[in-house]
Amino acid sequence: MILSALLTSVGINLGLCFLFFTLYSILRKQPSNVTVYGPRLVKDGKSQLSNQFNLERLLPTAGWVKRALDPTDEQILSNLGLDALVFIRVFVFSIRVFSFASVVGIFILLPVNYMGTEFEEFFDLPNKSMDSFSISNVNDGSNKLWIHFCAIYIFTAVVCSLLYYEHKYISLKRIAHLYLSKPEPQEFTVLVSGVPLVSGNSISETVESFFREYHSSTYLSHVVVHRTDKLKVLMNDAEKLYKKLTRVKSGSISRQKSKRDGFLGMFGKKVDVVDHYEKKLEKLEDDMRLKQSLLVGEEVPAAFVSFRTRHGAAIASNIQQGIDPTQWLTETAPDPQDVHWPFFTASFVRRWMSNVVVFVAFVTLLILYIFPVVLVQGLANLHQLETWFPFLKSILNMEIVSQVITGYLPSLIFQLFLFIVPPIMLLLSSMQGFISHSQIEKSACIKLLIFTVWNSFFANVLSGSVFYRVNVFLEPKTIPRVLAAAVPAQASFFISYVVTSGWTGLSSEILRLVPLLWSFTTRIFCKEDDKEFEVPSTPFCQEIPRILFFGLLGTTYFFLSPLILPFLLVYYCLGYVIYRNQLLNVYAAKYETGGKFWPIVHSSTIFSLILMHIIAIGLFGLKKLPLASSLTIPLPILTFLFSIYCQRRFLPNFKSYPTECLVNKDKADARDQNMSEFYSKLVVAYRDPALSASQYSRDI
Amino acid sequence: MILSALLTSVGINLGLCFLFFTLYSILRKQPSNVTVYGPRLVKDGKSQLSNQFNLERLLPTAGWVKRALDPTDEQILSNLGLDALVFIRVFVFSIRVFSFASVVGIFILLPVNYMGTEFEEFFDLPNKSMDSFSISNVNDGSNKLWIHFCAIYIFTAVVCSLLYYEHKYISLKRIAHLYLSKPEPQEFTVLVSGVPLVSGNSISETVESFFREYHSSTYLSHVVVHRTDKLKVLMNDAEKLYKKLTRVKSGSISRQKSKRDGFLGMFGKKVDVVDHYEKKLEKLEDDMRLKQSLLVGEEVPAAFVSFRTRHGAAIASNIQQGIDPTQWLTETAPDPQDVHWPFFTASFVRRWMSNVVVFVAFVTLLILYIFPVVLVQGLANLHQLETWFPFLKSILNMEIVSQVITGYLPSLIFQLFLFIVPPIMLLLSSMQGFISHSQIEKSACIKLLIFTVWNSFFANVLSGSVFYRVNVFLEPKTIPRVLAAAVPAQASFFISYVVTSGWTGLSSEILRLVPLLWSFTTRIFCKEDDKEFEVPSTPFCQEIPRILFFGLLGTTYFFLSPLILPFLLVYYCLGYVIYRNQLLNVYAAKYETGGKFWPIVHSSTIFSLILMHIIAIGLFGLKKLPLASSLTIPLPILTFLFSIYCQRRFLPNFKSYPTECLVNKDKADARDQNMSEFYSKLVVAYRDPALSASQYSRDI
Repeated sequence: MILSALLTSVGINLGLCFLFFTLYSILRKQPSNVTVYGPRLVKDGKSQLSNQFNLERLLPTAGWVKRALDPTDEQILSNLGLDALVFIRVFVFSIRVFSFASVVGIFILLPVNYMGTEFEEFFDLPNKSMDSFSISNVNDGSNKLWIHFCAIYIFTAVVCSLLYYEHKYISLKRIAHLYLSKPEPQEFTVLVSGVPLVSGNSISETVESFFREYHSSTYLSHVVVHRTDKLKVLMNDAEKLYKKLTRVKSGSISRQKSKRDGFLGMFGKKVDVVDHYEKKLEKLEDDMRLKQSLLVGEEVPAAFVSFRTRHGAAIASNIQQGIDPTQWLTETAPDPQDVHWPFFTASFVRRWMSNVVVFVAFVTLLILYIFPVVLVQGLANLHQLETWFPFLKSILNMEIVSQVITGYLPSLIFQLFLFIVPPIMLLLSSMQGFISHSQIEKSACIKLLIFTVWNSFFANVLSGSVFYRVNVFLEPKTIPRVLAAAVPAQASFFISYVVTSGWTGLSSEILRLVPLLWSFTTRIFCKEDDKEFEVPSTPFCQEIPRILFFGLLGTTYFFLSPLILPFLLVYYCLGYVIYRNQLLNVYAAKYETGGKFWPIVHSSTIFSLILMHIIAIGLFGLKKLPLASSLTIPLPILTFLFSIYCQRRFLPNFKSYPTECLVNKDKADARDQNMSEFYSKLVVAYRDPALSASQYSRDI
Repeated sequence: MILSALLTSVGINLGLCFLFFTLYSILRKQPSNVTVYGPRLVKDGKSQLSNQFNLERLLPTAGWVKRALDPTDEQILSNLGLDALVFIRVFVFSIRVFSFASVVGIFILLPVNYMGTEFEEFFDLPNKSMDSFSISNVNDGSNKLWIHFCAIYIFTAVVCSLLYYEHKYISLKRIAHLYLSKPEPQEFTVLVSGVPLVSGNSISETVESFFREYHSSTYLSHVVVHRTDKLKVLMNDAEKLYKKLTRVKSGSISRQKSKRDGFLGMFGKKVDVVDHYEKKLEKLEDDMRLKQSLLVGEEVPAAFVSFRTRHGAAIASNIQQGIDPTQWLTETAPDPQDVHWPFFTASFVRRWMSNVVVFVAFVTLLILYIFPVVLVQGLANLHQLETWFPFLKSILNMEIVSQVITGYLPSLIFQLFLFIVPPIMLLLSSMQGFISHSQIEKSACIKLLIFTVWNSFFANVLSGSVFYRVNVFLEPKTIPRVLAAAVPAQASFFISYVVTSGWTGLSSEILRLVPLLWSFTTRIFCKEDDKEFEVPSTPFCQEIPRILFFGLLGTTYFFLSPLILPFLLVYYCLGYVIYRNQLLNVYAAKYETGGKFWPIVHSSTIFSLILMHIIAIGLFGLKKLPLASSLTIPLPILTFLFSIYCQRRFLPNFKSYPTECLVNKDKADARDQNMSEFYSKLVVAYRDPALSASQYSRDI
């Protein structure tokens, strides 16, 4: 790739970005789009858009950028929660890292690379190959490579110190968040699983007597979990029916007053629709009541146990309770909205086994992911299609159609397969027996990150068969050499990847094209009132791996091909503005994980650094500078030690709160008048929603 | 090696064993040896040997065997403690494993191996090579190998189920031990390190206010640790001087009434000895008092904090206390006798750094251990000696001398180097910043085990340079093939190793030759009363790695060369009897680790099994039975999963006691009358012995 080609691509994407931003700044001011661009504001009742028409509504303005940048970290923490703050801080951290990297890369490494071999053609810039800017332009054994060597050491030191600072900042914010927040049920509650079955006692009695005995001073109440999966099916049916009924009654579906009650409404005798639905609903509710009364007996050996103090809950969750470590397992309870109810049917052994199965499935998917893609792409083969569907022959023989099919279909299929990866990861994680949606998301986020790095980075770099790739990692000694030979060659590909996928991805994120079109269509075709809309939940699980992957690209190419750095810096700056805007206006967190995404960022950064070091070790070897290669070896070891130190120093704070905070907060609560009210709410907070189902038929 | 040679070696060692046992059974009955063969009994006042002479004293009897086998597990637990029980159970477990292995090996695998290729020479047993009994005798691709394949699966299943059973048994015994024992200071106490320095407050005040604030209901008292290393030097001097003085006074060293007070007692004016020593002692004690008063200021930011209940201590030790995870670090306090005082000068970072340094030192020692040995062995080279010490020339030229030097000196030096390994491991572990001797011993035990496996097993099997060995492990794919080729070849060496090192080691353990000779010499040359003797502490740290190493040999050679199994079985049976005897009569535990050596046994057994599987995978490959090779691959994975399951299922119980036990025991204590007395003892239990030094001069 030559420089001018890159610049063309940058220009096109820059144009697209500006177009999207302009569209956004106009569209967001239209009152009809308020549920697309400001659902969070609408929900909070903060939307100030008037229906009055004025000229300013049609002009693109940049006021939203200012508004997005306005709130301080403290305001974000108190309004949007800790997870949003962590998400923003990831961008801040990345901007800092790549600002430094860009300065070093552009002003020191790039000139060194460019003057590596050829002096004469200094001024023919546009036709230069991208290789002229990368380390491959430097002669073998040249002493200029020592500049790269120093840059690697300095860059690592800077990243590590920034990481340390950020880790400290976020862990302090986590404590601050606890002090700021109101009492939450999850702080006072512990999930107990593996309750032993005592003959003659119900599970509820066993739990009660155990905690009355061993936590007599702090025990408040408990809620035993029930097996409610069948009930939930009935509930969903009832809810749908109820919605339909209200619609029929209000007249929004008034086309047919009566329908046949047979198959698909086509056979049988005619009945009145309202009557028909009401009867059906009543029957369903009878079923539900029956199930509910039956379910009181169907207890699962797990319970949410609530305590009078946070410290009491921490004591129960941190210390092994029963003599048998597989019984009376305790863990911090999730947010009541965050509970993943289906988990509770699993026992200790089954939960553990499903963990193993999911792990195996994930590794298999990771390694063999390419096969189904290739298989389906094979179906897009022209000859194959012709033999299978002979009637398509005439169409397929057309020049344009065949070009589209052979050119775009395979990459389209690949993209489609990439789209289904996040749901698959979520599905895998949800099978692992996590008790909360946030844990599932966190686990899916890690899986997705590994998947992205493996199938986007290593698949592109180590082009060749899957087995070749796996094989490389089975021979640890050859890794540096293989990577050092393969990674620099892909520099131009990844630069254009940052520009196309990164930049355009961000601008389509802010435009929210799919929700926009959806809202537009529903407004035209449905006459329903559009007050019923859901605030989308923040897509941490999908976005964090992508952001971290760009960080990995930047870190590994920092000394190989520093031209990538300014593009990345632009990406992070754009992302910072856009995601602040989206978090303030669009998304709302359904639950709070307490900043638990940060450790993933930490590990990913450390991994990127070590990967860079390994490539450097191999590259200095290939460039015939064995001394530099040997002198780089301590770097990954030191980085790894730094990582362990950080984990010891900060990670405990991400797992649970220290006694100091809990007791202080408990003491502050004790002076609070509203605590008795909170306790009465706490007692019922963890009732299974299925068991406290509202009675729809009464509302009609 | 042919069978008859092996039998000769077995015969010689069997003879030696019988000789040692006979000697033991006679010598132990002599009253003068009571401090050698029954120091524990003497200490407890249970020794029943009369000085009266009778004939039975000179006859070898086997009554001691019966007495050693008599006590039940419950009696051992209550009299000797949990560690002793665990030590005995290791033998029980090994006997069970190798009984089964011997039956399968001798009656199924051995005949299969023997009839592998040659039928004709069936009856010429004594001249058979040992190879005829090993798997190498079976033809390549023979279906008989499937018998070995099945044996491996069955053996693994049996070992795993026995391991599970034993793990369960010991973890229940651990709980039983807590319920049986009297209140111990360590159960009520927590060691707090990383106390933050608050300006204007002493460390003692900071600790007091922190625990009064956050553990108001259970906090009892605390003892701040002081820097006492210099004081300890003075104390040791004073103690030595005091002993000398009492000896001079009592007249046991009465040869000189006066001595010169100059250099080495040879110059200067003559002084009265008693006077001289008394003055010196007084001066030392003045120094000590001065130091003690100074030390009150020299506080270390660490303290032993005692609580009113066990549960209170568990709460403090299990939950992070301060906001900064590097401050207010808590851990369960060790036994007061078990505290390793020198550790306390180290801070969090220094402790962590020294851990890293020790790890690096250990790995270096592990890999490069062979170099110093080879170097020193080089000095034992004849020519070298002749050039260095020309006057030895005539002696070295003698046939016998040269044979001894070239033949025995190198192996002698190697053995000497092996002797210094345990102290080196103890030294390394003591530098790691452990707070108790028992932790140091446990860590040294693990190090010694790794060292033994690496330098005795892999060094013998992968004969070749050190770098070759390290290289093998850097290419994971080649490991099975290399091991499968190398391990079977060493079968006969390891069989004779079991017989010589194992059997004779055990019988010399029971004879206690060194203490016997020592006691004999001191009785002849010193006229001191022999009431002053120390009960030796149980050498868990040295013995457990050796026992486990034999287990590793047995497991890996189980299907390769089953001839080793009966010899191992004999070793374990002998060891069972002998160590029961030694634990009952000789050793006394200085401190109780609470069975924490068992997890090492577990990990080592799992490692042995997986090593066996890896060898099997390689061997089936070499024997051209690739299907068996592939079908063995799930086995190490399953074993590993089993190990993880066990660790989750049982390990928590080895780390701390569950709430259930603690609260029950606390409630039982609350009904006890003696608790106030115990509390007053608890308050002073963790005073540094250096600060409460007794005043020797007053006793004189």
